[in-house]
Amino acid sequence: MGGSTFGQAFRVTTFGESHGAAVGAVVDGCPPRLALDVKEVQRDLDRRRPGQSLLTTQRQEEDRAEILSGVFEGVTLGTPISLLVRNQDAQSGAYEAMRDVYRPSHADYTTEAKYGVRDWRGGGRASARETTARVAAGAVARKLLAEAAGVEVLAWVDSVRDIRAMVDVDAVTLEDVEAAPVRCPQVHAATAMTDAIEQARRDGDSLGGVVACVARNVPAGLGEPVFDKIDADLAKAMLSLPAAKGFEIGSGFAGTLLTGLAHNDPFVPGPDGRPTTQSNRSGGVQGGITNGAPVVLRVAFKPTATIASAQQTVDREGNAVTLAAKGRHDPCVLPRAVPIVEAMVCLVLADHWLRQRAVAG
Amino acid sequence: MGGSTFGQAFRVTTFGESHGAAVGAVVDGCPPRLALDVKEVQRDLDRRRPGQSLLTTQRQEEDRAEILSGVFEGVTLGTPISLLVRNQDAQSGAYEAMRDVYRPSHADYTTEAKYGVRDWRGGGRASARETTARVAAGAVARKLLAEAAGVEVLAWVDSVRDIRAMVDVDAVTLEDVEAAPVRCPQVHAATAMTDAIEQARRDGDSLGGVVACVARNVPAGLGEPVFDKIDADLAKAMLSLPAAKGFEIGSGFAGTLLTGLAHNDPFVPGPDGRPTTQSNRSGGVQGGITNGAPVVLRVAFKPTATIASAQQTVDREGNAVTLAAKGRHDPCVLPRAVPIVEAMVCLVLADHWLRQRAVAG
Amino acid sequence: MGGSTFGQAFRVTTFGESHGAAVGAVVDGCPPRLALDVKEVQRDLDRRRPGQSLLTTQRQEEDRAEILSGVFEGVTLGTPISLLVRNQDAQSGAYEAMRDVYRPSHADYTTEAKYGVRDWRGGGRASARETTARVAAGAVARKLLAEAAGVEVLAWVDSVRDIRAMVDVDAVTLEDVEAAPVRCPQVHAATAMTDAIEQARRDGDSLGGVVACVARNVPAGLGEPVFDKIDADLAKAMLSLPAAKGFEIGSGFAGTLLTGLAHNDPFVPGPDGRPTTQSNRSGGVQGGITNGAPVVLRVAFKPTATIASAQQTVDREGNAVTLAAKGRHDPCVLPRAVPIVEAMVCLVLADHWLRQRAVAG
Amino acid sequence: MGGSTFGQAFRVTTFGESHGAAVGAVVDGCPPRLALDVKEVQRDLDRRRPGQSLLTTQRQEEDRAEILSGVFEGVTLGTPISLLVRNQDAQSGAYEAMRDVYRPSHADYTTEAKYGVRDWRGGGRASARETTARVAAGAVARKLLAEAAGVEVLAWVDSVRDIRAMVDVDAVTLEDVEAAPVRCPQVHAATAMTDAIEQARRDGDSLGGVVACVARNVPAGLGEPVFDKIDADLAKAMLSLPAAKGFEIGSGFAGTLLTGLAHNDPFVPGPDGRPTTQSNRSGGVQGGITNGAPVVLRVAFKPTATIASAQQTVDREGNAVTLAAKGRHDPCVLPRAVPIVEAMVCLVLADHWLRQRAVAG
Repeated sequence: MGGSTFGQAFRVTTFGESHGAAVGAVVDGCPPRLALDVKEVQRDLDRRRPGQSLLTTQRQEEDRAEILSGVFEGVTLGTPISLLVRNQDAQSGAYEAMRDVYRPSHADYTTEAKYGVRDWRGGGRASARETTARVAAGAVARKLLAEAAGVEVLAWVDSVRDIRAMVDVDAVTLEDVEAAPVRCPQVHAATAMTDAIEQARRDGDSLGGVVACVARNVPAGLGEPVFDKIDADLAKAMLSLPAAKGFEIGSGFAGTLLTGLAHNDPFVPGPDGRPTTQSNRSGGVQGGITNGAPVVLRVAFKPTATIASAQQTVDREGNAVTLAAKGRHDPCVLPRAVPIVEAMVCLVLADHWLRQRAVAG
Repeated sequence: MGGSTFGQAFRVTTFGESHGAAVGAVVDGCPPRLALDVKEVQRDLDRRRPGQSLLTTQRQEEDRAEILSGVFEGVTLGTPISLLVRNQDAQSGAYEAMRDVYRPSHADYTTEAKYGVRDWRGGGRASARETTARVAAGAVARKLLAEAAGVEVLAWVDSVRDIRAMVDVDAVTLEDVEAAPVRCPQVHAATAMTDAIEQARRDGDSLGGVVACVARNVPAGLGEPVFDKIDADLAKAMLSLPAAKGFEIGSGFAGTLLTGLAHNDPFVPGPDGRPTTQSNRSGGVQGGITNGAPVVLRVAFKPTATIASAQQTVDREGNAVTLAAKGRHDPCVLPRAVPIVEAMVCLVLADHWLRQRAVAG
Repeated sequence: MGGSTFGQAFRVTTFGESHGAAVGAVVDGCPPRLALDVKEVQRDLDRRRPGQSLLTTQRQEEDRAEILSGVFEGVTLGTPISLLVRNQDAQSGAYEAMRDVYRPSHADYTTEAKYGVRDWRGGGRASARETTARVAAGAVARKLLAEAAGVEVLAWVDSVRDIRAMVDVDAVTLEDVEAAPVRCPQVHAATAMTDAIEQARRDGDSLGGVVACVARNVPAGLGEPVFDKIDADLAKAMLSLPAAKGFEIGSGFAGTLLTGLAHNDPFVPGPDGRPTTQSNRSGGVQGGITNGAPVVLRVAFKPTATIASAQQTVDREGNAVTLAAKGRHDPCVLPRAVPIVEAMVCLVLADHWLRQRAVAG
Repeated sequence: MGGSTFGQAFRVTTFGESHGAAVGAVVDGCPPRLALDVKEVQRDLDRRRPGQSLLTTQRQEEDRAEILSGVFEGVTLGTPISLLVRNQDAQSGAYEAMRDVYRPSHADYTTEAKYGVRDWRGGGRASARETTARVAAGAVARKLLAEAAGVEVLAWVDSVRDIRAMVDVDAVTLEDVEAAPVRCPQVHAATAMTDAIEQARRDGDSLGGVVACVARNVPAGLGEPVFDKIDADLAKAMLSLPAAKGFEIGSGFAGTLLTGLAHNDPFVPGPDGRPTTQSNRSGGVQGGITNGAPVVLRVAFKPTATIASAQQTVDREGNAVTLAAKGRHDPCVLPRAVPIVEAMVCLVLADHWLRQRAVAG
């Protein structure tokens, strides 16, 4: 019931607190005989790693992944793959002052309301550091999807505050995204976003925005018709990320402004004789099941709750106090959220790909 | 793996096709000794029932619920509660023409891609008729939450196309919502929405919009810190509804336009000595766990895919064809989505309320 | 958490109390396009049905199954299959006297300790009547296994009290088993068992015994290497049956009397070139995974707890009382346990067959 | 679907191969604020550790446990507790010869039939080394049960081959069990067992036997009435152990020789006014739910499959070969199975104790 496991067929369990000994993941259900090298895990971790640029937290973590089980002679065994990342640069002293103070819009108070105890160092279990484990597990899912079905999952920063990029969902590449540390593939928007984030940092403030993601070459037929619709599982995956406040599949909220006639995606015969859609307002999902078109989604991330400016709050004894947060943090989580969003999308797709294999043989 | 079960502690399994013999739900995990009358289930079903007004489908279903198990001498036994609703007014003949044609933006093609077979009558398992079972199960959850914790869950139509109501989330009542068939509590907006929907019907077209929902008196501490954040489970619940394309908790996408300083909810000492927030951009959830403030969420529903106007599509043999859909349908799903959204919110809250009881005793 | 769902890929949820309106099952995860007729379900239910002979309870139930969903034009849809059996001959009056008295070695007291309430009529949820739903669901699993892999599952009464049959596990057929109402395929033992059961009935007493079961043509590779070993899931399935007190796979307890040299099953090249075992003390399972040999198991059932003779017990107020049970019951559950054991074995095998398909494609 | 997770509320996921980098467990769902020291985990691991005496394998492993997460300032946080044990004395060379040969009655062939690949070093995932992780997790469950409800779980070697101890289930203590390395609390039987095991080792042979276990002070009301009966979950837990072939709760197979009148446990008023049973043939479980009496169970373990004597078998190419196994092993697994059985019983009880808390508040 602890809620640290995700997926049914491709199951990931994560563990670890921000300033504990380690964070990690156990992947159960990955098929055997998949070639897997720890470098493939490291590649995604390196994209998520803190301290990459001035846009991110200055916590220095190598985030060196170790595979403890489930891989033998370069291939998966079908048994659980355990992935471990030791914490190195935990500077817990900065959090001493916040030991008894609830940071606004953080999980400090709710954790205490839930458990009656919390690891106050760096956010404990609620820290975004936990997503290290998700990215490691997601790299395994990504490899499986690529090998088994040629699936490619790619995310980018679509907006920061009111700076919105115009991105061609069908054409954008990993190189485009990685061209700038802010991970926005449109150059002008990237520059404006970078400036805005740096200004927010100087102001002791923070920014939010939207990450968009596309999954290409997803086979038709993934997802279940009722509760486990693939967009339902994607929505859960995205809202399970720290700071996420909203989710859209395909046309999303904007789609509510159209009429049915304008919104429906007409079917036309596809190049392989199978139906294909002329437009993709469905976002690749119809009735909770993929239709073969690219899966397109968007995730809203609020501005980072940790800010340097003074804020009004309450301590454990119920006294009103003023807090100026210490501790290192990202002035904008969006650039590092990109590989995290990709990882969660990979986990959902791998899970449903295996589930569909059980159904359809 | 079929994905027809929802929840971990308060578990609901639904079954039934639109034009099959019946739809129903089995609720497993409801605590014993809860007073429960079938009338309480019927009350919610009557709000969801088709044929209530000209705004909805004209399919005539009494939707008479029967409790087959789990209740004895007026109270729950702790054993599975089975809820059954027979289908009565299935007019499958209207669908004969669509037996071999894929309706655009419906689940026809994806169901066939997944299973290689489908019940083409009225949408089969993908039909919104399945939500009858969810509403019946949700009524049990609603009763549990009300008795155990005084929780109240209330939804309403917040927008239709570009007609947006201004609603006081803290003050709105069930009576306000039910005052008009369109289920928008603001009178002027309700009138405009009604006109727009009726016009869309006459045009052979359809409309979408947004349903908002508030849950009051939710205790602090519900939700798990990582994957099973309560807003993650709410997002999944909402996206599992037919026609849903987006989800927001609290400030949602609009929150991305604020800076951290403007977005954070300052804590102040509450009347009972516990911290309370001055604002509620968090939507009652911080770090995936409720903080005692009202839980506030919004769901985007696309315009109904079924429209009377002619559309371009493809048949099972891959031929391009033109389709003018028959079959009865809602020109706008929003009014009937209101009790369905409430039901799903109740299921999520009841599940997490029981889970927290296991954790905290 | 209510524990009324079994299986992960082929999932069965049952509901219903002995004297409630109905018992039933929802099967989620059955693959699509399986030919299924309600008669195939009925055939197994008829074998479990009470009132078949003087060896069983005289409760008269037609046990007429209805398929409410998941089957269309004679084949499964891939959606939940709902199976319903109405209760007809509930004579609750006989249980009035036991409303406040705990029958020895029944679930009366423990149900009340758990829930603080119970349906005292006929055992409520703890009644063997619940197994009706399992048999109905098991018939679907049996069909799937037969069609997909040619699997045959066959059980019989191996012993009653100290009367033990000698049965050739490899040769015994359904006809042999069904030749006598006691369901022991060895004629002499069957006669002795029948006599013993009839004598026990006359004495106001009851008997127990052992059911054996073989599953033939089970493919190698089913089962998971750690917790979800296939024999672990079989053990759970068997001990979940009312009155079950023991389980053996292969050599079982008797195997502990051999040395390793005598107990190990030597491998020899099989007819198809794959390894096969010369003996089958493993019972078709090695390391929790099937090896292609017949799966052989045994289940101990205690003598029926309900007896007509006077017994010492306690009532709800804690007073010592004497109870002479009324209500109809089987003087020996073994003959009717045979199709129930088969059903549970089918559920386990179907579940693992689907799981393996997800792993191996 | 990989089957490496056990439990619903108190969930344990294990990972690790015998000769891989490490074995470990993640415990999710343990309540917060439980005092927990790594020494309490180590105490149980030391009882399971190889190389304790000449009765066990001579593999030298310190089995030093590390807690990586979930514990802070000496108490649990409510978050996942990750437990890690590095492998140290893996001597894989001895297994080279068996790389392409299937050891009889081992999991070599079935693993390959399932996955098409296996880690041939020391049994890989199928090795009893995996139970290290179970014992570590079980120590957490044991602590929870002791603190929360005063539960005590104690197992012992009840028989080796045909040498059966007579043990007073109500009186036996941990000191009695630990008095001899063979872990049989009856002195004479212990001596005979020790002699027999040493003789088997000298003979290049192996022995099996039965472990018995009692759980005291288990509250009434644990277990679910249908599939998740507590004895069903115990049966699964026991059969999930390597070499387990049989399970009994209470009277087990012997109970089938009694009539109902002799077998039923009469209720009498207990010292606290609650009903208690005069005898305990039920083994503390009635209708799948604990009744407050000691839970008593027995597990049959086959003679160790690995023996030094020559055996007939088949290699990967299908050739008949003769194998004289190398690698270190226990000539009888019983003594080391004792803490493993206890660990699994603790996991089941902790899981159901939490589940009951969700049901009953």
